[in-house]
Amino acid sequence: MTILETSPPETWKVPGFRFATTACGIKANQRTDLLLVAMDPATSVAGVFTRNQVVAAPVTLCRQRLSQGQGRALIVNSGNANVANGPQGMQAALALTRTVAQHLAIPEETVFIASTGVIGEHFPVDRPLAALPELTRNLSDQTPWLQAAQAIMTTDAHPKLVMEHFHVEDQPVHVLGIAKGAGMIHPNMATMLSFIFTDAIVPHSILQRLLTHAVNHTFNRAIVDGDTSTNDTVLTFASGQGGVTIDATNPTTMTLFAAALESVCGRLARMIVADGEGATKFVTIEVTGATTRAEARTIAATVAKSPLVKTAFAGSDPNWGRILAAVGYAGVPLQVDRIDIFLDQVQIVAGGIRAPGYQEADGAAVMAQKEITVRINLGMGREQDTVWTCDLTHGYITINADYRS
Amino acid sequence: MTILETSPPETWKVPGFRFATTACGIKANQRTDLLLVAMDPATSVAGVFTRNQVVAAPVTLCRQRLSQGQGRALIVNSGNANVANGPQGMQAALALTRTVAQHLAIPEETVFIASTGVIGEHFPVDRPLAALPELTRNLSDQTPWLQAAQAIMTTDAHPKLVMEHFHVEDQPVHVLGIAKGAGMIHPNMATMLSFIFTDAIVPHSILQRLLTHAVNHTFNRAIVDGDTSTNDTVLTFASGQGGVTIDATNPTTMTLFAAALESVCGRLARMIVADGEGATKFVTIEVTGATTRAEARTIAATVAKSPLVKTAFAGSDPNWGRILAAVGYAGVPLQVDRIDIFLDQVQIVAGGIRAPGYQEADGAAVMAQKEITVRINLGMGREQDTVWTCDLTHGYITINADYRS
Repeated sequence: MTILETSPPETWKVPGFRFATTACGIKANQRTDLLLVAMDPATSVAGVFTRNQVVAAPVTLCRQRLSQGQGRALIVNSGNANVANGPQGMQAALALTRTVAQHLAIPEETVFIASTGVIGEHFPVDRPLAALPELTRNLSDQTPWLQAAQAIMTTDAHPKLVMEHFHVEDQPVHVLGIAKGAGMIHPNMATMLSFIFTDAIVPHSILQRLLTHAVNHTFNRAIVDGDTSTNDTVLTFASGQGGVTIDATNPTTMTLFAAALESVCGRLARMIVADGEGATKFVTIEVTGATTRAEARTIAATVAKSPLVKTAFAGSDPNWGRILAAVGYAGVPLQVDRIDIFLDQVQIVAGGIRAPGYQEADGAAVMAQKEITVRINLGMGREQDTVWTCDLTHGYITINADYRS
Repeated sequence: MTILETSPPETWKVPGFRFATTACGIKANQRTDLLLVAMDPATSVAGVFTRNQVVAAPVTLCRQRLSQGQGRALIVNSGNANVANGPQGMQAALALTRTVAQHLAIPEETVFIASTGVIGEHFPVDRPLAALPELTRNLSDQTPWLQAAQAIMTTDAHPKLVMEHFHVEDQPVHVLGIAKGAGMIHPNMATMLSFIFTDAIVPHSILQRLLTHAVNHTFNRAIVDGDTSTNDTVLTFASGQGGVTIDATNPTTMTLFAAALESVCGRLARMIVADGEGATKFVTIEVTGATTRAEARTIAATVAKSPLVKTAFAGSDPNWGRILAAVGYAGVPLQVDRIDIFLDQVQIVAGGIRAPGYQEADGAAVMAQKEITVRINLGMGREQDTVWTCDLTHGYITINADYRS
């Protein structure tokens, strides 16, 4: 079985990775905004990216470089998304990865890059370029991973990092992930960056397949505001330094690794939702009894995105009519008189109408909780899906009405 | 040509309609919550309703009664939407329309009904039933239409009414509309009720065709929060008392009438958006250069629904990257390097990137206005469409986080 690491993050180690962070001046007030990770020669890479048609230059570059399968370095900045900057944006991303490659004496196409922050502002590439010599000198496998998580934050209230491990014949496998993201969060995917590091030996093609599966079951379930970013990136690097091989010859090990990877992605995704801009509540929307899983996802996402549902959560108001109305406009064929809805264990809708025994006090008690599960049984078929969301509060408005100032 | 009525609403008259309002106790604090309109025998009716699959009992009843083409009465309550109440909800709606029919000595199937307010609460039908005798006695063609508009309000800050008129050979045609709606506003349609009254002679089938067209170009363009209500209803009644006939034998007159109807619907729809819950700005999103009109509408609606775009308007922040990002995730095939975006006359995006001459001060000046037009040229084809929306503010959260309390 895989085990969630509960020791202090300061002690976490993943063999094969060295990194350093700095404040290069993209963010104001000398906040840390640059992360460089250097990886051992055998490191394989996998990636999943935004489906937005407007994409940042770093996303385009990573997509191009993914197929060669090897990752030797990762450079990430926060404070500027380097998107919609045209040829200059791509030139900046290329200059940055080329200079990283020179400093580390590695092939340019093995350098991966990600940016997050304001969209459409000129990318001040001179600042990270000037910081690279010192950043390279400071690379260390002793740097606490918390620093890496902090360097990629934008509107996040908290850094996000998690580690799972398991053993195969006394050899440990570590899967450590960091992430940032608090707004513009929506499946496919989010203004969300996540980087996952493991010391297992995982061929590129297997790592890609397992990551794609894990992302669909985790990050793609996370909805804060329904906006889909231009920069979403999940990259996973496998250094191979731990000595355990993940491939089809050992299905049990592969299952363990897949579970650890999905668990890390899932925990990071839930941390992102819990840290949603202004969020005070974590809400799980489970849709069961659907004809297809895609329809279950569509209904769950429609409920999760409804501003009226999200403000009802903010107000601890068991206004179940808003939930039922959102189910009704999801565009999925329904038999309304078969729909049951529960707030945790309290049934609020039975057969499409207010449940006979429902007492508003019971619904209000659930809505007052910090964590709430809405279960919607469509009574149509046997498929189901789940999304995670948060409430919509004054805090969201405050953060986003003057994010850039 | 058709003329917007600018005389005080207290003086407006539409021959063939008598009405009365009262506070029957569905709303708290003795606020007016019930409207009864009685119509002359020759009155034809047309209607357009929500596409939500969860619908209120009054919507189901109106749909059933529409095909017979005649409207003799309309009963509308605010404060309770009478939705998701199962058989009891339909029985309440039937009892209410049956009693109206008895009081007015008209056929039951010519009585139309609409409800707006909280979803899923027991509908206290005894209260409107008890008010009907006095309401019937008070029916008058001297009651100011402002009272009708006030009786149907829920979270509206302002009553909404508008009148246009035109003449055909010295005979006047009046088209008067009232509406309510401030949240849960989204095409197809909104928690939006609108009732339009004309003294023209319009056969049911023509009235239905013209109304459907007008609604698609007006109410269906109005987006406040993207939630689609269970109760949306637009009903139009033509009393025929003015003597002007609208039919295919006189295309000029029909064009005038269609224009007046669309103008009334458009003005009411824009009033609803301007009165959007918490709204401080009115925003028009125009998409041109699309391959199909449906794609233009999809992109315009996606931008209009984006919480990040709407909060940028609230903060007067020309954060055009959020607009471009929303265009990118609308799900419509794009050539990003052909996209131009303007805030009023200020070009902010040219060929998918920041416009060369763009100065942030110019964008900020437009964003500070109370009315803003965002023009998005996709550079793909010749089709276009427009939606109207508002900003997302603290006021929206305040109203909706405790709407029921």
